[in-house]
Amino acid sequence: MPLYTSFVTLLVALFYFFIATRVPLARRKYNVQLPAITGNLDFERVFRVHQNTLEWLPTFLLPLWLCAYYLSDIGAAVLGLVWIVGRLLYWLGYTSAVAKRIPGFFIQALACLLLIIGAAVGMFMRLGTP
Amino acid sequence: MPLYTSFVTLLVALFYFFIATRVPLARRKYNVQLPAITGNLDFERVFRVHQNTLEWLPTFLLPLWLCAYYLSDIGAAVLGLVWIVGRLLYWLGYTSAVAKRIPGFFIQALACLLLIIGAAVGMFMRLGTP
Amino acid sequence: MPLYTSFVTLLVALFYFFIATRVPLARRKYNVQLPAITGNLDFERVFRVHQNTLEWLPTFLLPLWLCAYYLSDIGAAVLGLVWIVGRLLYWLGYTSAVAKRIPGFFIQALACLLLIIGAAVGMFMRLGTP
Repeated sequence: MPLYTSFVTLLVALFYFFIATRVPLARRKYNVQLPAITGNLDFERVFRVHQNTLEWLPTFLLPLWLCAYYLSDIGAAVLGLVWIVGRLLYWLGYTSAVAKRIPGFFIQALACLLLIIGAAVGMFMRLGTP
Repeated sequence: MPLYTSFVTLLVALFYFFIATRVPLARRKYNVQLPAITGNLDFERVFRVHQNTLEWLPTFLLPLWLCAYYLSDIGAAVLGLVWIVGRLLYWLGYTSAVAKRIPGFFIQALACLLLIIGAAVGMFMRLGTP
Repeated sequence: MPLYTSFVTLLVALFYFFIATRVPLARRKYNVQLPAITGNLDFERVFRVHQNTLEWLPTFLLPLWLCAYYLSDIGAAVLGLVWIVGRLLYWLGYTSAVAKRIPGFFIQALACLLLIIGAAVGMFMRLGTP
């Protein structure tokens, strides 16, 4: 079991939980009552940060663990931290303006791309191992 | 491989699937045509139950398995069952009124919190093991 | 670690990422500005394809890995490929009309059902093993 990646995974769960809690706070701030998910653009941007983070979790978590197991625990863990940093910037940017979500978005997408490549490399190397 | 937690995980998949199937039934009952996701408050509450359950799965499943692996299979499995019970109450409550989602919500959140603590304790104990 | 299922899982991550990228393309084509998620029915169907794929991932991925581990790596991997094919047909169908989502939907649902049965069988067999 890759221990470094386990720690980063717990951090991801905590970070994701933190992002999720932004939505009820934005509901109160911008007065958007449950069960509505639209009606105020400031609320909708916060809502989209959470949704987008959830939407990207499969693209992130599956390669993270395949990379950790088949190639490198510490390498996967470092890229996992990069993903969290990208997601933090995405949250800070998107909540102020739609266009400002871009830099953080590309950082987290790059982390996912490298994890996918790492997972593929590790798995093809395993194929060739007797 | 933690067998008790595996059983609970399969139960979680079945429970989550059951919750998901409430949405098309509510579409028919309240006459909300695809691809719309708004338009009737009774439908929207059922829709939100499903979405919220999905949104909490990472906060639940990642600590569940880290806790099962690093600390206690049977402990994680029991907390997994508590989560399902909380989610059942959340579904029953929320479908009748927005305010009635609260008790079930706190039960499932408490299960997640204990799993996070359990995972962290187990992982830090592993760090100290030669 | 089930290697065939690992390869299929990486393929699932790539396929899911491909489906996710259809949404920003549809935003541009049908001129639906962020953070809106409604306003044009053609866009909303593409949006729903992505959302529905995400919504089904837990019902698919959890039994996939339990089946791979407890019963058969290659069997789970084959059903994983069937799921991807069903999801491709679902995407192609749903983007042209709501009713055309049905065949692909049932193929992917059948794959999930067989994975759930496979996981349950494998886990109950393990229970009986000393």
